[in-house]
Amino acid sequence: MSEPPRGIQPGNGVDEYLFDPRLLERIVDIKDGIWVRPLSIEDYDKGFIQVLGQLTKVGDMSKEQFSERFRKMKASGDYYVIVAEDKNVGEVIASATLLTEQKFIHNCALRGRLEDVVVNDKYRGKSLGQLMVRTVSLLAQRLRCYKLSLDCKDTIVKFYERLGFIKEPANGNHLNARFDYESPTSNL
Amino acid sequence: MSEPPRGIQPGNGVDEYLFDPRLLERIVDIKDGIWVRPLSIEDYDKGFIQVLGQLTKVGDMSKEQFSERFRKMKASGDYYVIVAEDKNVGEVIASATLLTEQKFIHNCALRGRLEDVVVNDKYRGKSLGQLMVRTVSLLAQRLRCYKLSLDCKDTIVKFYERLGFIKEPANGNHLNARFDYESPTSNL
Repeated sequence: MSEPPRGIQPGNGVDEYLFDPRLLERIVDIKDGIWVRPLSIEDYDKGFIQVLGQLTKVGDMSKEQFSERFRKMKASGDYYVIVAEDKNVGEVIASATLLTEQKFIHNCALRGRLEDVVVNDKYRGKSLGQLMVRTVSLLAQRLRCYKLSLDCKDTIVKFYERLGFIKEPANGNHLNARFDYESPTSNL
Repeated sequence: MSEPPRGIQPGNGVDEYLFDPRLLERIVDIKDGIWVRPLSIEDYDKGFIQVLGQLTKVGDMSKEQFSERFRKMKASGDYYVIVAEDKNVGEVIASATLLTEQKFIHNCALRGRLEDVVVNDKYRGKSLGQLMVRTVSLLAQRLRCYKLSLDCKDTIVKFYERLGFIKEPANGNHLNARFDYESPTSNL
């Protein structure tokens, strides 16, 4: 048996986590009672949904819905949701998601996508957003992503630029088509 | 046994496809000898890699590498690579990818991502790019994505705007961090 990685307490089975916690080894340590770890299936009861609710509409998600999505993400193997937990109170206080998009191009490369970065309002000003983004960035490199992409509002561009992201010349546009849920009919 | 969907020839097993071809039913039909279908594991020998090579660097991908990535994508269930085949010559002449990103937000929604749209140079001017994007868009709706997102260069924004995509006010930025493949060390 090898030593348990730093930050992972013996007795906590790794089965509960979305991905192997050892992937965060030597990236983040516990500091001021705050540790960064993979999302756990137990986090529904630890305030994860409430934190996401500070980012956007989450909806009235049951524990069963959460668990089902968690399992689907885990089965896919492309989802790396990380959370910061305040061990003093046992609550999730921040989250960020790395999606590793499988490509055929660039020798079957992985492209990282940074999604859904959020920090509990009460914990603002502690650079936790920065910690989450840097953790995802290092994790993306560890997983050998050739780049890490994100889409964001004008107001947050400078924050990401300080963390090494670049709006590339003539190639920095993000567009959306939004749908209602009616069945589509062909209009080709 | 139900009738085989239009465009899917009896005798072609569905096992070779990346996703169930019936998902494209009533979205696209054969026209002028060109049909749109899911990527097949046989497409390595039908010019798929050469078409992708017109988009960006693909690298020296072996059939084994292609097949392995194909199977991983298929196992994940989030990848919908479509191709257009010219039945007259039996070659792949265009491709586009829909990635359905699993979310916790918005009631465990799916967010669609349009990626890697490419048309063989020789077939330009036949609105095949439009056909591929519209097919992905309708497929995304069929799969109940709440939106379909893409990143693009300045020169192609108008093309996508004509197909219903919008650069949302103050929220249309796409940023990247590019990595070499050296092992990351913590700098947190």
